[in-house]
Amino acid sequence: MRLTQEQLEQYQENGFLLLDSLLDGHEVDRLRTAFQRDCDTPGPHRIVEEGGAAVRAVYSSHQRQAEYSRLVRDPRVLAPVQQLLTDDVYVYQFKINAKPAFGGEKWAWHQDFLAWQISDNLPAPAQVNVAVFLDDVTEFNGPVIFLPGSHREGLAHEGRKSEVKSEQHLDPDDISLPPQRLAELVDRHGMTSPKGPAGSVVLFSPEIVHGSAPNMSPFARRLLIVTYNEVSNLPSWRGEPRPDYVVCRDSAPLAPLDGTFLDDLEEVAV
Amino acid sequence: MRLTQEQLEQYQENGFLLLDSLLDGHEVDRLRTAFQRDCDTPGPHRIVEEGGAAVRAVYSSHQRQAEYSRLVRDPRVLAPVQQLLTDDVYVYQFKINAKPAFGGEKWAWHQDFLAWQISDNLPAPAQVNVAVFLDDVTEFNGPVIFLPGSHREGLAHEGRKSEVKSEQHLDPDDISLPPQRLAELVDRHGMTSPKGPAGSVVLFSPEIVHGSAPNMSPFARRLLIVTYNEVSNLPSWRGEPRPDYVVCRDSAPLAPLDGTFLDDLEEVAV
Repeated sequence: MRLTQEQLEQYQENGFLLLDSLLDGHEVDRLRTAFQRDCDTPGPHRIVEEGGAAVRAVYSSHQRQAEYSRLVRDPRVLAPVQQLLTDDVYVYQFKINAKPAFGGEKWAWHQDFLAWQISDNLPAPAQVNVAVFLDDVTEFNGPVIFLPGSHREGLAHEGRKSEVKSEQHLDPDDISLPPQRLAELVDRHGMTSPKGPAGSVVLFSPEIVHGSAPNMSPFARRLLIVTYNEVSNLPSWRGEPRPDYVVCRDSAPLAPLDGTFLDDLEEVAV
Repeated sequence: MRLTQEQLEQYQENGFLLLDSLLDGHEVDRLRTAFQRDCDTPGPHRIVEEGGAAVRAVYSSHQRQAEYSRLVRDPRVLAPVQQLLTDDVYVYQFKINAKPAFGGEKWAWHQDFLAWQISDNLPAPAQVNVAVFLDDVTEFNGPVIFLPGSHREGLAHEGRKSEVKSEQHLDPDDISLPPQRLAELVDRHGMTSPKGPAGSVVLFSPEIVHGSAPNMSPFARRLLIVTYNEVSNLPSWRGEPRPDYVVCRDSAPLAPLDGTFLDDLEEVAV
């Protein structure tokens, strides 16, 4: 699949692009099963709820689960990313977040690239984020909220670099926009949040200002975010690098599969 | 103004009814000015932010501000309430809530009537709530979320009556629905949240299950809620009654004004 000229222009203009129902119900089922399998696999890639049994997030499932190792090369996902970037790409970060019912702390308004610049010394904002809805996303279950067009202004503030140490998770306060700055940006750009059925996909810029509301619904909401980075734009660390399940080290260029991610997996029992 | 048969049926069916842009921009301006005037009036009716200068809510402004004393008798508001109830009505509670930017704690899912039964020993759910938008309400600034039709099941649980003492504000935990119960209700009824420009009005049942999301926007959002109660359905207290600015004691039947709430106020300087 290739993006149309109109879709490319929408992405450049707004900083994000919704591809409604890109994956079908069967494909979503398979991805959910693989997510659960990865949740059941012990290891540091799992982020567990405080004091709890529930897994809140997993990293780098594409390194363990065939469905995801293939999904990141599915041409419906990879080809649009290649269109939006210049150089070859690899997976810089892979995360599935299960936002719990009745909460899931809201994530302060921020720009991803600032976090990666601070944490990983990433040279340029040469990334595309691909968000894959593993559940329906509605206004009630903590959708991501964008300020459309805000990516065109570059980084809106500097963050708190000096106080930040290398760690797995940045403190949102280190990178969150000051309220007055955000108010200016909302005045100029407004707010919007793409929604859609499970299987929908949102491509978004590493420089777009975004936040996300808490999940007010009684059901968890699973969201995959794959970040592709250009192979010529590698991170480097002054101190201790972040773990390799958080920042992937395999920067070999990805090539699209011939078919879809399930094509060679159909015989595998679900 | 009278509700049409279709509107009456919508209210009975869904437990709420949106009246889009019922008040015009000039009227909203006057109400905002009167709200600010009441915020500047010292007294226990003002709920102030923790450690702060900002007023988060005011009670019973209709006892001090002419705009509000007349608004509660404006026929566009009072006549629909009279249609929905049987007996004469009075104002049981009047509150304007300014939900602060970037937060405003989310209010747990609950039914108003349970709170009033516990706090004020109110005999029957013979009330109508009238919410007046003093700012535009969007999906981003903490709209009220309803489970449409949930009022038809009556009270969904009993709350924690025994532990509750008489106080101005109920602890949301005393009346909030258990997660499993809410999940069942959401499965059956879904979720919806009426939105609209400032001046819009939502009528809603004291038995409808509702919650409200935090305000993710950088601007405060002001919402007036007037609760009308039937004059034959008065509260009584076993212990200390709640203060009279929270639970109004004047239960004389209200009669609609001849004109709109501003008709006799237009000469007053804003």
